[in-house]
Amino acid sequence: MEMWFSDEHTDNVKLSIRVEQQLFSAQSEFQRIDVLESKEFGRILVADGDLMLTEKDEFIYHEMITHVPMAVHPHVEKVLVIGGGDGGIVRELVKYDALEKIDVVEADPLLIEVCRKFFPQMACSMNDPRVSIFNEDGLRFVRSKSDVYDLIIIDSPNPFGPGEGLFTKEFYGNCYNALHSDGVMINQHESPFYKEEAFQCQRMHKRIIESFPISKIYQAHIPSYPSGHWLFGFASKQYHPLNDLDGVTWTLKGIPTRYYLPRLHQGMFALPAYVEELVKDVE
Amino acid sequence: MEMWFSDEHTDNVKLSIRVEQQLFSAQSEFQRIDVLESKEFGRILVADGDLMLTEKDEFIYHEMITHVPMAVHPHVEKVLVIGGGDGGIVRELVKYDALEKIDVVEADPLLIEVCRKFFPQMACSMNDPRVSIFNEDGLRFVRSKSDVYDLIIIDSPNPFGPGEGLFTKEFYGNCYNALHSDGVMINQHESPFYKEEAFQCQRMHKRIIESFPISKIYQAHIPSYPSGHWLFGFASKQYHPLNDLDGVTWTLKGIPTRYYLPRLHQGMFALPAYVEELVKDVE
Repeated sequence: MEMWFSDEHTDNVKLSIRVEQQLFSAQSEFQRIDVLESKEFGRILVADGDLMLTEKDEFIYHEMITHVPMAVHPHVEKVLVIGGGDGGIVRELVKYDALEKIDVVEADPLLIEVCRKFFPQMACSMNDPRVSIFNEDGLRFVRSKSDVYDLIIIDSPNPFGPGEGLFTKEFYGNCYNALHSDGVMINQHESPFYKEEAFQCQRMHKRIIESFPISKIYQAHIPSYPSGHWLFGFASKQYHPLNDLDGVTWTLKGIPTRYYLPRLHQGMFALPAYVEELVKDVE
Repeated sequence: MEMWFSDEHTDNVKLSIRVEQQLFSAQSEFQRIDVLESKEFGRILVADGDLMLTEKDEFIYHEMITHVPMAVHPHVEKVLVIGGGDGGIVRELVKYDALEKIDVVEADPLLIEVCRKFFPQMACSMNDPRVSIFNEDGLRFVRSKSDVYDLIIIDSPNPFGPGEGLFTKEFYGNCYNALHSDGVMINQHESPFYKEEAFQCQRMHKRIIESFPISKIYQAHIPSYPSGHWLFGFASKQYHPLNDLDGVTWTLKGIPTRYYLPRLHQGMFALPAYVEELVKDVE
């Protein structure tokens, strides 16, 4: 039998991956969740038909969204992860001994359960004593916080459908308030290549620069994501992502990584000319 | 009617692009050549069923394979392009007034003809008076040259099938001899992500470091290529790709680009940890 899963990148482009077996499928209160087994990408997590992550390349996304701010902010103790029920960001965060508190706000408890069962190498740190999981709405959760966190990581799906509220100006403003006076906010920032995503990326950037004095974009190669060219946003009240990078201190911590390196850090913020232009239009 | 073109990235992964129309199809002495019209990527050039380039993102490949050495080597006058019958590299090269001679060795005259007709924005500079086109075998052509060129750009297809000879140690050695004592050789270097290509990439790097004293790898985001993470090789007798970069002089030339920028240059040579390891294994 031949079975293929297709992830639609646009109406006219799709990435198809041969599937060995469908391991899980269920509808939660929030979304349909599927887990597929594939030869090329290992296990694949699918939400409402969209590829969320794969066993083979999830390390790139999770390392890049976590270690970039951790190598810049000199004393992160309290972190809020919005979304992130898969545990990938938590796995990277617990590598830092100095971290005291990791709050994970994941609305969908089924997602957490599925990842614990089918992606143990990713969800392995969700039981760390520093981790508290809140099955709540991220928007509402962050609205009630003020001056609590050093770092907020927004591990949102795309800005269509249920995740939409995580891409509004109001939400970014609430994140600003939830952060200490030297806090940093990181979010996934879509891809600059296909028209619709590039537009979302631009709009998101506009809203973040309206809330934060420092706002820069960086990039990574994530093969399973649309176009493979993925952006992240670094928004900050005080620390500059390049000027305040302390690669030596970070290296001395001995954090094991497969993608992130401090000497990559500068380069990731150097955007291609066409991406710079996209972003400049709203600055 | 629905029509999709699928580019096989591995036996288990393919990128599919919706096709509006097949504009051309013919078998040359060397390969089957197709031109497809698509909404998302514009026109697509296909050789023996493999995606060669698309109108939408060919600028990334052609800028990155051309401007990186041109911003390092201080006085390029004579260039050899092996392959490159599509004209994309030539279009970038003719932007440099100081260039005196551009030899293009493209075995397949039909490829040149097809690109002139269907990709005029790419093949537009093939009539530049500095360009000489040789419909010859690249291997044989370069074997007969000694101390002739400042820069050789190898615009080869993948290392399987007819292009195979362009990935041998003997060939790289002949390129070395064809270059002046401060010459630079650039080649497309496959992707590090999928196993088979990563292996080719490693093998290629090993062969190049056996021929050239300086050999570094750099990367770009090319969405239509397998994994979107594409590598290039910078092999050199004298100039170092980072230490000898002269971004100011390059910028003063006023070369228009949509991807390449000197401030991107450093970053492109900063490889992710897993790619560094892949490459180090053979160094």
